[in-house]
Amino acid sequence: MILSSLLAFALAAQPVDLVVTHGTVVTVDAQRRVLADGAVAIDKGRIVAVGTGAEIAAAYAGRESLDAGGGIVMPGLVNTHGHAAMVLFRGVADDLRLMDWLQKYIFPAEARNVTADFVRAGTRLAALEMIESGTTTFVDMYYFEDQVAEVAKQAGIRAVAGSTVIDFPAPDNKTREEALAYAERYIKKWKGDPLVTPAVAPHSTYIGSPETLKAVDELSRRYDVPLLIHLQESPDEQRTILERYHKSSTEHLRDLGVLRKGVLGAHGVWLNERDRRILIDNNVGVAHCPQSNMKLASGAAPVKEMLAEGLRLGLGTDGAASNNDLDMFEEMLTAALLSKHASVDPTAASAAQVLEMATLGGARAVGLEDQFGSLEKGKRADLIVVSLDAARLHPLYDPVSHLVYATKGADVRHSVIEGRVVMRDRKVLTLDAAAVVSEAERFHQQVVESLKR
Amino acid sequence: MILSSLLAFALAAQPVDLVVTHGTVVTVDAQRRVLADGAVAIDKGRIVAVGTGAEIAAAYAGRESLDAGGGIVMPGLVNTHGHAAMVLFRGVADDLRLMDWLQKYIFPAEARNVTADFVRAGTRLAALEMIESGTTTFVDMYYFEDQVAEVAKQAGIRAVAGSTVIDFPAPDNKTREEALAYAERYIKKWKGDPLVTPAVAPHSTYIGSPETLKAVDELSRRYDVPLLIHLQESPDEQRTILERYHKSSTEHLRDLGVLRKGVLGAHGVWLNERDRRILIDNNVGVAHCPQSNMKLASGAAPVKEMLAEGLRLGLGTDGAASNNDLDMFEEMLTAALLSKHASVDPTAASAAQVLEMATLGGARAVGLEDQFGSLEKGKRADLIVVSLDAARLHPLYDPVSHLVYATKGADVRHSVIEGRVVMRDRKVLTLDAAAVVSEAERFHQQVVESLKR
Repeated sequence: MILSSLLAFALAAQPVDLVVTHGTVVTVDAQRRVLADGAVAIDKGRIVAVGTGAEIAAAYAGRESLDAGGGIVMPGLVNTHGHAAMVLFRGVADDLRLMDWLQKYIFPAEARNVTADFVRAGTRLAALEMIESGTTTFVDMYYFEDQVAEVAKQAGIRAVAGSTVIDFPAPDNKTREEALAYAERYIKKWKGDPLVTPAVAPHSTYIGSPETLKAVDELSRRYDVPLLIHLQESPDEQRTILERYHKSSTEHLRDLGVLRKGVLGAHGVWLNERDRRILIDNNVGVAHCPQSNMKLASGAAPVKEMLAEGLRLGLGTDGAASNNDLDMFEEMLTAALLSKHASVDPTAASAAQVLEMATLGGARAVGLEDQFGSLEKGKRADLIVVSLDAARLHPLYDPVSHLVYATKGADVRHSVIEGRVVMRDRKVLTLDAAAVVSEAERFHQQVVESLKR
Repeated sequence: MILSSLLAFALAAQPVDLVVTHGTVVTVDAQRRVLADGAVAIDKGRIVAVGTGAEIAAAYAGRESLDAGGGIVMPGLVNTHGHAAMVLFRGVADDLRLMDWLQKYIFPAEARNVTADFVRAGTRLAALEMIESGTTTFVDMYYFEDQVAEVAKQAGIRAVAGSTVIDFPAPDNKTREEALAYAERYIKKWKGDPLVTPAVAPHSTYIGSPETLKAVDELSRRYDVPLLIHLQESPDEQRTILERYHKSSTEHLRDLGVLRKGVLGAHGVWLNERDRRILIDNNVGVAHCPQSNMKLASGAAPVKEMLAEGLRLGLGTDGAASNNDLDMFEEMLTAALLSKHASVDPTAASAAQVLEMATLGGARAVGLEDQFGSLEKGKRADLIVVSLDAARLHPLYDPVSHLVYATKGADVRHSVIEGRVVMRDRKVLTLDAAAVVSEAERFHQQVVESLKR
């Protein structure tokens, strides 16, 4: 101990870009360590060391520092499923049956409003909201995905951004061939970017024909990028696919040869044991979206089973049109509550399991667990600092319990992504909040008018 | 119009204590009016007028004013079920089966820690948290209830505070007779107070013997105060009462002659159609507590049915030990989501219905709807101002949707209770937040030590 301290002193003060100090560090590392007086050293976008405040202070000198003020330092939250730009449809229609909601409101609103400008403005608003509530990585499936990537890059938020490829005319591309060509250009542009991981998104098995699914799979394998797809979300989908292919969507995708690490299925509400086994055997992830599933009355995903079986399980908000926000802290709470309720077992989905689902689990779900999701040496430096100032967070018996059951997005005080401080004292440094909001409001009236037609 | 303006001018500037200006006023009045540029005039603790900004400005001059800043002005939230002081047990034990949770943690922790001091410190922390998140009335069942009432009075928050009467030794009273005598003294002390409505709480039909239930009923009728009781919360309770009395808890209470307006049953998860009919016919209220019910896997209350049938339905958080906070905005969201999920109907529990449940519905549930729960002339002036500044609240298509699906407790900017500004710009004016938190922390270590024994 003395020797190592001396050694640290002899080599002392290795200069690094950033040191985060004075926090309880919830690492989500292999030992699930929680360091009472912890610190994190960061350099060139990567975590250099995680240790006690004394260890880090002895060994590293940060060119910049961030004082956690006695709060909790934890991995940034990973939102594994959403459609960021849909924040511009937030609250436009609620409390409706899925088909009414889609056909009377969402599809017409999308057809009449979604342009590159709309996606840019919506994604900017979503990025602001996500950074403000502790998300450091979001997985996206939408149109004009190059705009999503550009906005993420500017906002300094990590994105796994999937370009949609479907068989019928979409806001960005009119044919499957155009969509595939767009996706290939998009992948080439972004492949290797430190913040944006390009991906492809063939929507679902009920919208994507077998030929499209195969073509998208081929593209994603050729460039080694994730493939994002809606998977077994609703009873309607189950029925449709069973009638059409005499099997489940998971079996259909397996038989098409699509399943592998890096494939992420959103929702997975109706996965049975056989489906789950197939996903596990193929290292496929699932994005659990409890609030959206409840709001649309789609059902409750078998979370207790997926956790027990070791499936790569992440957490997502889905788009704001069916949530109606992008707050991953609230999503954690709902995941814990819904799993207990649905399995009639209050021990299901413990706070520790749900916290993992929202961090490392999300990274595993999309096959990027070597990159982010926990506070460990060598990983990309994505972390948030949660303030414990609110009356609601006293007393504190167990930080992990508080993170899931009592913390809110508004408690997030600082955010660091890829080693860069993107929010300090609740001020997002990478976006002009007032400009983002007023830009979004420009689309508000347009959407209202478009729905009167 | 001109004439009425002139008339208003002629009588102009009636001086009143407070005018709240520049808000979208969500009234929850008989017509469920939403006034786009609204204002509220308040005098001597009561609402004098609700109208457009121009109408109110023409007719009233406030000695004090509160600028809603373009936010939403709405009735304060009514938390219809909880155990305020249990915030001191927040997060002490989670993810456990009900009986393990109660017998290994909550009951020992209560037996070893709950004193008048504990209740005072805990209720103060709870009051701070509740005011900060928009609650203006809380319904409480605990021990040393006189302390709860004293703290509520000091904090300036409205309380319906029920003194517990049970057959076995409790932290405050050792016998039923002592508990009844305590309750009577307590009622006499507080009866008629503008903020505190004293009440009695015989816990439940499984803990309260028929004799105790009758004695408590007699006391509550003699003084005309509410009677608060846990009602059909869990399958265990259902079984126990069926075996013991060959009927449901609701039928048992009816047969004992206990049911009437002012009786409030907490949870009501397992109420069947017959039970609900009895409650409706007797003007009994139910406090729906979705987060606690989900966390303990107690089941989902028949909310869709209770709303359709017109039962007096309020919303509650339950104690923080099973929630783990007292945020009624989050409870509204969960109520909407759980009802849709449980009834497999996304049209169940609309935003408007849930907002009503959390305001006027709560007042109706406890039989005090002539006093508070909506913004209407003559009612007690309990209101909150919700800021729309967060990125998360843009764009705004429908204020009621946002209040249920996207607003968080931290968005509450100002709070007025009984005409008094108790929070301004998120600073609670009636409590010393730092002192409250440090007082609560004194009990933290004590509780930890007590559970090691």
